[in-house]
Amino acid sequence: MKHRVLALAGGVGGAKLAAGLAHLLEDKLAVLVNTGDDFEHLGLHVSPDLDTVVYTLAGLANPATGWGLAGESWAFMEQVEKLGGETWFRLGDRDLATHAIRTDRLRRGERLSAVTAQFCQKLGIAATVLPMTDDRVRTVVHSGVDDMPFQDYFVRRKCAPEVTGLSFEGADEATIVAGLDAVLGAGVEGGIEAVIVCPSNPWLSIAPILALPGLRERIAATGAPVIAVSPIVGGKAIKGPAAKIMRELGTKPSALGVARHYAGFLDGFVIDRLDASQADDIAALGMTVRVAQTVMSTPSDRVALARECLAFAAALTAAKTGSDQVPR
Amino acid sequence: MKHRVLALAGGVGGAKLAAGLAHLLEDKLAVLVNTGDDFEHLGLHVSPDLDTVVYTLAGLANPATGWGLAGESWAFMEQVEKLGGETWFRLGDRDLATHAIRTDRLRRGERLSAVTAQFCQKLGIAATVLPMTDDRVRTVVHSGVDDMPFQDYFVRRKCAPEVTGLSFEGADEATIVAGLDAVLGAGVEGGIEAVIVCPSNPWLSIAPILALPGLRERIAATGAPVIAVSPIVGGKAIKGPAAKIMRELGTKPSALGVARHYAGFLDGFVIDRLDASQADDIAALGMTVRVAQTVMSTPSDRVALARECLAFAAALTAAKTGSDQVPR
Repeated sequence: MKHRVLALAGGVGGAKLAAGLAHLLEDKLAVLVNTGDDFEHLGLHVSPDLDTVVYTLAGLANPATGWGLAGESWAFMEQVEKLGGETWFRLGDRDLATHAIRTDRLRRGERLSAVTAQFCQKLGIAATVLPMTDDRVRTVVHSGVDDMPFQDYFVRRKCAPEVTGLSFEGADEATIVAGLDAVLGAGVEGGIEAVIVCPSNPWLSIAPILALPGLRERIAATGAPVIAVSPIVGGKAIKGPAAKIMRELGTKPSALGVARHYAGFLDGFVIDRLDASQADDIAALGMTVRVAQTVMSTPSDRVALARECLAFAAALTAAKTGSDQVPR
Repeated sequence: MKHRVLALAGGVGGAKLAAGLAHLLEDKLAVLVNTGDDFEHLGLHVSPDLDTVVYTLAGLANPATGWGLAGESWAFMEQVEKLGGETWFRLGDRDLATHAIRTDRLRRGERLSAVTAQFCQKLGIAATVLPMTDDRVRTVVHSGVDDMPFQDYFVRRKCAPEVTGLSFEGADEATIVAGLDAVLGAGVEGGIEAVIVCPSNPWLSIAPILALPGLRERIAATGAPVIAVSPIVGGKAIKGPAAKIMRELGTKPSALGVARHYAGFLDGFVIDRLDASQADDIAALGMTVRVAQTVMSTPSDRVALARECLAFAAALTAAKTGSDQVPR
């Protein structure tokens, strides 16, 4: 088997840990990325999470915004404004190349996964980046008042509406991206060693991935430990509306709340030192807890957290083999 | 009737005279523009002639190239190249806004003429700019060896192939743009005063317009004098492959050759001073000849040639009214 680790990722936080893992694992890493926030804008197929992961792994991401490309220019947007086009979603001049080429190739019948693989090859990314599916899945945000496409909620309305629920249109009929077979090598001796759920928003970024029929089962069948890193630290989200959504959905924003959300899926959960007092309550949910420094402010933070995750997964595997004597 | 003059135009040379006419006529000018060179590139609907006319009328055209926008930047193209996309047709960052908005609106079912009108309004263009049709017409260049879409010939292969013929796919079934009715006001007292064929390539830019079923008849029915400005001066094209194509099609490149091509359609023909010796032979084709300074190097050249054309048309009308006593 080529790949040692599968990471599940959405946007900025997820991309950072994926970059840390890629630094350690290079082509032994595969990242399965949310496409529920994909949308069409100005006729272009935009894949925000996928692009954030690709740009971050390529070392091209804008460190200030977390999305888009570093050193981006905005001549296109200025002209769109002059021509009376929509400007609420900003597309940089360089970023546009990704969207235009992708849109063109998709219209010619290429699969999103194939287009993404070409981009990764061109940008020198050794890791395998897989959109979760080549089918169309669209995250819809429900509020008490109306239902919104995800980017309407996230960008146009700046996460202001109260979220009463989420749905993933098309997920029930979507097929998991074909490339995952080669990554998981289900049941094969020496197969994948760990599945790592990155600190992306569990409701907006990870839930669409886990909504794909058969994905949880495919992951479980590998026998590899499944661990997640809490995106909530000290009761707050590092970035984005995760804490706000937890409150709106009736859960106190905390690492424990995230652990409850993931209960049954995870073998291990990484929480920040700030949240160490929640370790016993989380362990009571049936998962092993590891306390670590999880906030990634610098590139070396990403690598340190990635190393922590790999060590944690190895420890879980060792404990399982030692206690259960179940051959993997 | 609002409009006094209809101009037929293709690319750079045509756009320059159209700008001169617009300077004099403001909202009394309508320009009917070739769309046979429209094509899809990177999934975008590109309308090169239409954009050249719009940008030139808006005072935004790049004076060095004749196409595209002045002060353009190229970040998009640089990134397209990095991502392995096609780079033979160059789209500037600002220019892209036109293509992206147009493509999006066309896909939503808007007509090209409506999108163009919106652009003109946003860019402060008083003249009416009409794509020749809202239907799909595509110029195909035939060589002895193969048939090429126009932009393949014009940009990718830099007009190198020998042209053995041209065809305008879809022209036979295309409907003249609806907005032309309001411009022509056929047969109405005080209707259009002149139809001016700008010095665009007769085979590549004007022929597709005249290939639309009924267009020649519609123009003739107005009773207005039809005049053209020769794009060939001193046996050479000011810009582009007109002279080369004339040779390849078996005609010596000259103002006379262009006049022969237009014979039966024109009442008057404007030739450059350099070509004054051809005046008698051209007049023998049944059209009135006017000798003028036709090369437009400066903005005031454009206005001077426009003024010359308007005076010529007025003289033709006066002569016709005086001699025939036919009420218009």
